[in-house]
Amino acid sequence: MEFDLIARHFTRATPGAVLGVGDDCALLAPTPGMQLAVSSDMLLEGRHFSPQDSPAGIGHKSLAVNLSDLAAMGATPRWATLSIALPEADDAWLTAFARGFFRMADMHGIELVGGDTTRGALTISITVMGEVPPGQALRRDGAKAGDDVWVSGVIGSAALALAYRQGRLFMEQIDAARVLPALYLPTPRVELGIALRGIAASAIDISDGLLGDLGHILQRSQVGAILEFAALPTLPVTQAYLHEKVARDCVLAGGDDYELCFTAPANRRDAVATVAQSAGVAVTRIGRITAEPELTVIGTDGQPLPFDHTGYDHFAA
Amino acid sequence: MEFDLIARHFTRATPGAVLGVGDDCALLAPTPGMQLAVSSDMLLEGRHFSPQDSPAGIGHKSLAVNLSDLAAMGATPRWATLSIALPEADDAWLTAFARGFFRMADMHGIELVGGDTTRGALTISITVMGEVPPGQALRRDGAKAGDDVWVSGVIGSAALALAYRQGRLFMEQIDAARVLPALYLPTPRVELGIALRGIAASAIDISDGLLGDLGHILQRSQVGAILEFAALPTLPVTQAYLHEKVARDCVLAGGDDYELCFTAPANRRDAVATVAQSAGVAVTRIGRITAEPELTVIGTDGQPLPFDHTGYDHFAA
Repeated sequence: MEFDLIARHFTRATPGAVLGVGDDCALLAPTPGMQLAVSSDMLLEGRHFSPQDSPAGIGHKSLAVNLSDLAAMGATPRWATLSIALPEADDAWLTAFARGFFRMADMHGIELVGGDTTRGALTISITVMGEVPPGQALRRDGAKAGDDVWVSGVIGSAALALAYRQGRLFMEQIDAARVLPALYLPTPRVELGIALRGIAASAIDISDGLLGDLGHILQRSQVGAILEFAALPTLPVTQAYLHEKVARDCVLAGGDDYELCFTAPANRRDAVATVAQSAGVAVTRIGRITAEPELTVIGTDGQPLPFDHTGYDHFAA
Repeated sequence: MEFDLIARHFTRATPGAVLGVGDDCALLAPTPGMQLAVSSDMLLEGRHFSPQDSPAGIGHKSLAVNLSDLAAMGATPRWATLSIALPEADDAWLTAFARGFFRMADMHGIELVGGDTTRGALTISITVMGEVPPGQALRRDGAKAGDDVWVSGVIGSAALALAYRQGRLFMEQIDAARVLPALYLPTPRVELGIALRGIAASAIDISDGLLGDLGHILQRSQVGAILEFAALPTLPVTQAYLHEKVARDCVLAGGDDYELCFTAPANRRDAVATVAQSAGVAVTRIGRITAEPELTVIGTDGQPLPFDHTGYDHFAA
């Protein structure tokens, strides 16, 4: 039955693999001369999604957060493995999950080549593999003083939706409906990441919040940054709640946005704008990299904001 | 703290990778002209190990079962990612787990290049990557009528140990001590798998039991097999319990042995024996492949054994 389950829901043609699901290993033929970018993420019910969430949405998001790591590296998606623990062999659940998963996979040229299925609390573990030309990967350690700091899309929406869902922020229902898709159906910026090869100096995806994730770039690059709070791109509905501290925290340090935060030399502004337009993604300049290794956010009053959040801590109490 | 945890326990030098732990993705440079073999397994507390098990042993076994998939493919181990959910950030547990994990990794040239850490019920999800020359992977679909069927090492020990632990089989304590290592510290047959390239026609690792796993070879190769029960290699202590049906079932259909079951043309017997000796692993001829697609086991009385087990079903009631 385990094998039937896998076969029925997750075996599809894998023309980009030598051998797909069904042997001890998948066999892949990497493109000669390319480097392989590999990332793994594990998502748990109760932590990364709730029992009421739609299985198709869980399938979408599970792969999307992994694709976001490839995007942040500028890698072209190729293959994935999917290990999944399920409390029971629920055919309807798996059908919907597979629909969400493969829709995302098909959008980005990912082939599912292997994995594992077992019985247990709902847990989804995915490894994605992509390819990038040597020397062109967007790393966290490439930011230089004077670089512009950019973000794609809008930020804070997913965290606002979560705050609403958890009752930490009162929102009108019509407003909540505008931020919820960011939480449940994030869009990995795969095309933008690939387009930024040779232009961006460093990049990361915003999974744990802008300040925390930018902090990783700063730490690895041994630099600092000054950001303008007023420059941070948010949905109009988010702006309507920015008088609340929880909403400001969502923008600065909320997770789950899966936008790209990247730096690029100031003389590449036109190039950034051009490739972003080609990729169909808005990008916004939010500050600049400094030699001094500190992260400062200038508030709307021109003064540095006090803040203590530096990202989401999975092991915080 | 999440990042500290990862850094403290799982970041080591990765000379075989372009970029290891600490960015959005690891960056790997596959060996030109080699194919990539990839496998993922997920292990859960309560299903694949119990709360009392030693964390070093869990680290050993988690990687060993994945290496066994590379062995069954004849692939040379290269890289792994490790995603782990833990109920709490337990430094002593992680130290011991990492010791067992890296000991196994070092024995087989595996570099840990990435992964994920989160809070939840103990869950370990590993993806391993290895390399194999094109056309030389040991696949499940290569068995031909007339091939010999071989197994490495001894089988049934791990299942006997589990039956003892679960109270399904009474064993003298001194006997149990002889089978327990097979359950807790399995040895992946990596060197043997590599040595069988170009000799074995098909291979699989015995994770779900001899009959079930050989059954996968038969199904994918569209052939059958006749085995001799008396030829099955077991520990002397196992033989002392073979009058019990549960012990015979352990040998035929018990899981967790992580030995290799493979087929090879009858004219390659000397080659099999030679490479097995070089790899330091005993191999035993247990039967032959037949054109008729049935799996028969001849008992010690010369009659076919009746059996219903065809492997461990993770979703069976």
